Amino acid sequence: MDIVLLTDFGTKDPYAGVLKGVIAQLAPEARVIDLTHEIPPFDVTAGALALFQSYRYFPKGTIFLSVVDPGVGSERRPILIQTKNYFFVGPDNGLFTLAFSGEKPEKIIHLTEEKYFLPSVSATFQGRDLFAPVAAYLSRGEAPERFGYSLEDYTRLEGLIPEVKKGEIIGKVLHVDRFGNALTNFSKGFLKRHFPSLEFFLTVKKKKITPLKTHYAEGEGKKPFLLFGSSNLLEISVNQGSAAQALKIERGDAVSVKGATSSPRRGR
Amino acid sequence: MDIVLLTDFGTKDPYAGVLKGVIAQLAPEARVIDLTHEIPPFDVTAGALALFQSYRYFPKGTIFLSVVDPGVGSERRPILIQTKNYFFVGPDNGLFTLAFSGEKPEKIIHLTEEKYFLPSVSATFQGRDLFAPVAAYLSRGEAPERFGYSLEDYTRLEGLIPEVKKGEIIGKVLHVDRFGNALTNFSKGFLKRHFPSLEFFLTVKKKKITPLKTHYAEGEGKKPFLLFGSSNLLEISVNQGSAAQALKIERGDAVSVKGATSSPRRGR
Amino acid sequence: MDIVLLTDFGTKDPYAGVLKGVIAQLAPEARVIDLTHEIPPFDVTAGALALFQSYRYFPKGTIFLSVVDPGVGSERRPILIQTKNYFFVGPDNGLFTLAFSGEKPEKIIHLTEEKYFLPSVSATFQGRDLFAPVAAYLSRGEAPERFGYSLEDYTRLEGLIPEVKKGEIIGKVLHVDRFGNALTNFSKGFLKRHFPSLEFFLTVKKKKITPLKTHYAEGEGKKPFLLFGSSNLLEISVNQGSAAQALKIERGDAVSVKGATSSPRRGR
Repeated sequence: MDIVLLTDFGTKDPYAGVLKGVIAQLAPEARVIDLTHEIPPFDVTAGALALFQSYRYFPKGTIFLSVVDPGVGSERRPILIQTKNYFFVGPDNGLFTLAFSGEKPEKIIHLTEEKYFLPSVSATFQGRDLFAPVAAYLSRGEAPERFGYSLEDYTRLEGLIPEVKKGEIIGKVLHVDRFGNALTNFSKGFLKRHFPSLEFFLTVKKKKITPLKTHYAEGEGKKPFLLFGSSNLLEISVNQGSAAQALKIERGDAVSVKGATSSPRRGR
Repeated sequence: MDIVLLTDFGTKDPYAGVLKGVIAQLAPEARVIDLTHEIPPFDVTAGALALFQSYRYFPKGTIFLSVVDPGVGSERRPILIQTKNYFFVGPDNGLFTLAFSGEKPEKIIHLTEEKYFLPSVSATFQGRDLFAPVAAYLSRGEAPERFGYSLEDYTRLEGLIPEVKKGEIIGKVLHVDRFGNALTNFSKGFLKRHFPSLEFFLTVKKKKITPLKTHYAEGEGKKPFLLFGSSNLLEISVNQGSAAQALKIERGDAVSVKGATSSPRRGR
Repeated sequence: MDIVLLTDFGTKDPYAGVLKGVIAQLAPEARVIDLTHEIPPFDVTAGALALFQSYRYFPKGTIFLSVVDPGVGSERRPILIQTKNYFFVGPDNGLFTLAFSGEKPEKIIHLTEEKYFLPSVSATFQGRDLFAPVAAYLSRGEAPERFGYSLEDYTRLEGLIPEVKKGEIIGKVLHVDRFGNALTNFSKGFLKRHFPSLEFFLTVKKKKITPLKTHYAEGEGKKPFLLFGSSNLLEISVNQGSAAQALKIERGDAVSVKGATSSPRRGR
């Protein structure tokens, strides 16, 4: 059984390595795969996006041990969610919001059964003391119900869905990736519903961005353009350059789209 | 058998990957686990601290292949240390000082037996040519004695133990972690001996820091506070912020603690 | 079978992790080893150098899944190259130039057989949709011929070989590593042919660098010196410091060598 790690621990400290030690002790047969440990500290939205971009490419049965946990040691609940294909273990703070647009939660368990934790659970490193041991025992075939009691619901992040206004749709930059592409919260499916022939332009930082290309190498010179990226989210890009740098875009910046000819489709 | 890697090689160069290649060749069955490769270049103390924070979470029998080696190719000795539960392979430069506060060395071997090295040992990359092959053969069950001759002692880092003065105890910042927490060399056990009810305050950069919290989320606003971190070392922290940035703390900075009411306990 | 990953994806995005998911799905038995994901974005030369420094340390049969791909989605061909000992999968853009100074290509296959790709191949992430699945199926024993048709040749990078002029030899800085060592394109074998007793000096940024040491710890103070590094390329180094910083050297900077006594050997 594969356990996939997603954290904001970085790699300069040994914290991520320690998770692997705990798993190696409790479930020596489990295979551990690093998804990323470079989620910006405390950035639950970025963690949610990284899960969204990735989970469906892993084998059925994969356990996503996800720790971006600004509220560690406080009242937020530790949870385990089982969907048709996957397991997600982590804090109940919205981290799983985007994954569950594709995967329907079948069981939500509040992790309370202390016999599955390390003998003494610190208030500062529950990734090590609680989440990693739970993921390890889960990979050994322990049933989700054994780890605690069932919950009806889980926490969702707010503000991830674009806002449709008269004449335009308002969204935001979810993430700037390593190549300087700015990923927005406009999915291809969403935009197709509003602009069936995908004729629109985007505005960011008061600059109008167009056209829509299909691959990065099509970009002309250093001119920014639009493109649906590998997760079908609309990106602002520059060919072999950083769109974020060129346009001074940061995570969280507002973007808007309007119909290229006149105005967004209103259900005609 | 698990081989855990700790180096200052970083991940932008292929040096850490090459260690894995050598191990895959010589011990295809061994599992390799990255602890961290982001120890600051040549920073033996930081490497020692990372081992201290981690080793006890790994399975019995784990081999820690540890290469932070400013003296590569010079007179410093390559060694292998066996404790009750673990093996440590690396340069004899103090890197193992803190691990052995918990694990007693049972055998110390000077690595001299060249048949366990790569055919030609470079003077610049002994991680690849000497330490990785030794760890690989060790994981295959070769007895420690086979790799060289026994030593009586190994090198310890100086200056890691706080200095008890009249009226205060002087320590230092060992490490600033990714979240901006400043880890000191005051352990919980040490402070409990001097302040049984843990009533003390800390001074850093002429600022008095108090109170002692139990988890990060308890911090009020951006006010710095104290906390025993996940390795039971006293940390200076800010809730969801960087204490190091707020207080301009760097690794190596002096800190001191004094009794909160009057003065440190003197054996009353 | 081991699959070694070399990319410019970085580790802050989940792109490298997604490659591992695809491989875990299609070839659950394959072992995946990270060589590096920190090749500078789009820097094919740096990728080629990292492969050169590493490939020979991996077991026979290793598959190098190498994705540094500024032309993704454009006309550049996806290829698979089999040598006597290894397999290389990636874009045909010169990435394998240096590896094949040691390994002779025996088969070069243009990857066209879509049944070995993910069901829908995006124009933006062929690492995930095309190269990772091919590497996965290859690790399961599929013959190279099955993935497409044979090619006669592959793309080589230009300008990697030093230029021999009257009285001096002109080269360049291929890479600055994490420790600040500046690696040149002068190999030990090449320089030995021109200066049999290795008596030469190097000029960079109008500064004359000498002498040639054998290990880093030999360097005196912060004085730059020369050394053949762990891949037998001439490096400019400073003991426990950054030569690149001290001399303001950047990747691509010109360097030259001249005979220390008079002029380069002219076949005497």
